[in-house]
Amino acid sequence: MRILVIGASGTIGSAVTDLLSQDHEVVAASRKGEVSVDLSNAASILSMYDKVGKVDSVISTAGSGAFGPLDALSDEDFTFGLGNKLMGQINLVRFGRDYVRDNGSIVLTSGILADHPNTNSVLLTTLNSAVEGFARAAALGLPRGLRVNAVSPPLVRETAIKMGWGNGGVPASEVAKLYQMAALEPVSGQVAKFG
Amino acid sequence: MRILVIGASGTIGSAVTDLLSQDHEVVAASRKGEVSVDLSNAASILSMYDKVGKVDSVISTAGSGAFGPLDALSDEDFTFGLGNKLMGQINLVRFGRDYVRDNGSIVLTSGILADHPNTNSVLLTTLNSAVEGFARAAALGLPRGLRVNAVSPPLVRETAIKMGWGNGGVPASEVAKLYQMAALEPVSGQVAKFG
Repeated sequence: MRILVIGASGTIGSAVTDLLSQDHEVVAASRKGEVSVDLSNAASILSMYDKVGKVDSVISTAGSGAFGPLDALSDEDFTFGLGNKLMGQINLVRFGRDYVRDNGSIVLTSGILADHPNTNSVLLTTLNSAVEGFARAAALGLPRGLRVNAVSPPLVRETAIKMGWGNGGVPASEVAKLYQMAALEPVSGQVAKFG
Repeated sequence: MRILVIGASGTIGSAVTDLLSQDHEVVAASRKGEVSVDLSNAASILSMYDKVGKVDSVISTAGSGAFGPLDALSDEDFTFGLGNKLMGQINLVRFGRDYVRDNGSIVLTSGILADHPNTNSVLLTTLNSAVEGFARAAALGLPRGLRVNAVSPPLVRETAIKMGWGNGGVPASEVAKLYQMAALEPVSGQVAKFG
């Protein structure tokens, strides 16, 4: 199968690319890659799909939003997060569905902060919850057997180590299996997560 | 207590106003009322709070978003819904917290479509899920005992009748009790709903 991975240069995206490349053709897209895309920019999403053409699956491992307590988040933080992690991923489905072959799938990324909020996750809990709601509802009205799912990654071990948060978390290679399941198994409108 | 009800001229808002007026001073705000507010307009939210002054509770029964399947929703539908029902209610908390007295509360509105999506609820399921996520996370970092909750109203009977959907649903007077609980009981970060 031909699978487009967005955010392919990131920690999760590169693990997803490694895993799926074993059996499939992966097209890697990222902000600065040969196939470039900026989720905040609708035109760049359209341009990416035009360049890539037909695929069997689109997997988004991208999307950003600021950390911080409510009183530290600016108007710009909300605007960026809503435009990038939420609307960017919604646009991946809106603009991408015609590029996905029959019975293919689109997989979006939410995150564990949807279920386990903390004082610094006000924006990300909001965005992740929204992405999950979108995936549940958007899945209901798609033609040609198309499927939409979300993956809610836990804290990734490589990220924890890089950030100096200790060596907890789940290895990216394990998290990648959630994306594989969400993309390839016959499920739709689901949120794949551990635990 | 002094309670600001936003969307007070609506079906739910007027029922909440009727219920809470029995024991409290209710300040009614709506798009065209004497105390006016437009959730899409951050300046109008700031202006409303400046005019109303200190309250013990803020209850939002407002917030709009378009119905329709994914392929019928325009860029403008997404922009309006995200700016109104989601960001408008987030701004009620961001801008309103300093106007709420110690141990007071802010109550937002999500909706049953968060839990029960259908093909026409793509945008509203997204927005409602986001509002619930925001309430869960924002509640964790508030000072002075302030509380934030959401209410997820079911289909309201008066709305069902008005729309010609039969006489199912829950009477607005019953739905109003969810808002009363969310505003006045010592709960925070919760989503009040039936069932």
